[in-house]
Amino acid sequence: MKKSSTEISIPDDHRSACPVACVLDIVGDKWTLIVVRDLFLGKHRFGEFQASPEAMPTNILAGRLKRLEAAGLIKKEFYQDNPPRAEYFLTSQGAALGPILIAMREWAERYIPGVVLVANIPSPEIRD
Amino acid sequence: MKKSSTEISIPDDHRSACPVACVLDIVGDKWTLIVVRDLFLGKHRFGEFQASPEAMPTNILAGRLKRLEAAGLIKKEFYQDNPPRAEYFLTSQGAALGPILIAMREWAERYIPGVVLVANIPSPEIRD
Repeated sequence: MKKSSTEISIPDDHRSACPVACVLDIVGDKWTLIVVRDLFLGKHRFGEFQASPEAMPTNILAGRLKRLEAAGLIKKEFYQDNPPRAEYFLTSQGAALGPILIAMREWAERYIPGVVLVANIPSPEIRD
Repeated sequence: MKKSSTEISIPDDHRSACPVACVLDIVGDKWTLIVVRDLFLGKHRFGEFQASPEAMPTNILAGRLKRLEAAGLIKKEFYQDNPPRAEYFLTSQGAALGPILIAMREWAERYIPGVVLVANIPSPEIRD
């Protein structure tokens, strides 16, 4: 069956057909959802992600952005040609990860003392 | 302030006070939530986790079980003394990760073709 452009392919090396496992194949690490969180918070540029308090290493950030783009979760747009400078935006699929972040936030609020909650998370700017 | 036994400590090396980052400090990898999923599915023994389709490497499984126990998300109980054999159960805190798994499942159902959904997830057996 031909896949439509709105579908995300399961990588050939996915571990199982379990939905949780398939999601973890894409975002199952310490950093990827931090980038998604930053996009929800209105950050779009490499330097903005780097400036987040988690101090994400440059090479890891570059790798995660490439992986998110390849998975169809973010879109890269150049806002300057010379030297080339890009901004990143959530796609609809990427923005649909929001409930996962919210569930994490609610769990942390309940069980991890000391976390600081952002009062109002703005709707993300979406580019498909 | 003294922490109560029902609270999970933020590790000293947590990356920030962001709730999402703090949750990822605990479960942000490819495997930990697979173990939590298995516990929801009624698996309790090392060999049962190993037999899951994701083929989790033994050393990684042992490490994740230790980490989950240290974080207060699972409880280890010995059902045999000689040789010692243990079973693992979700604590209330661990079972409260359920909404994160459900949010992942819903995202996967919507965006990843080919995932296989378990019809009825039983309520997990909880030990605090």
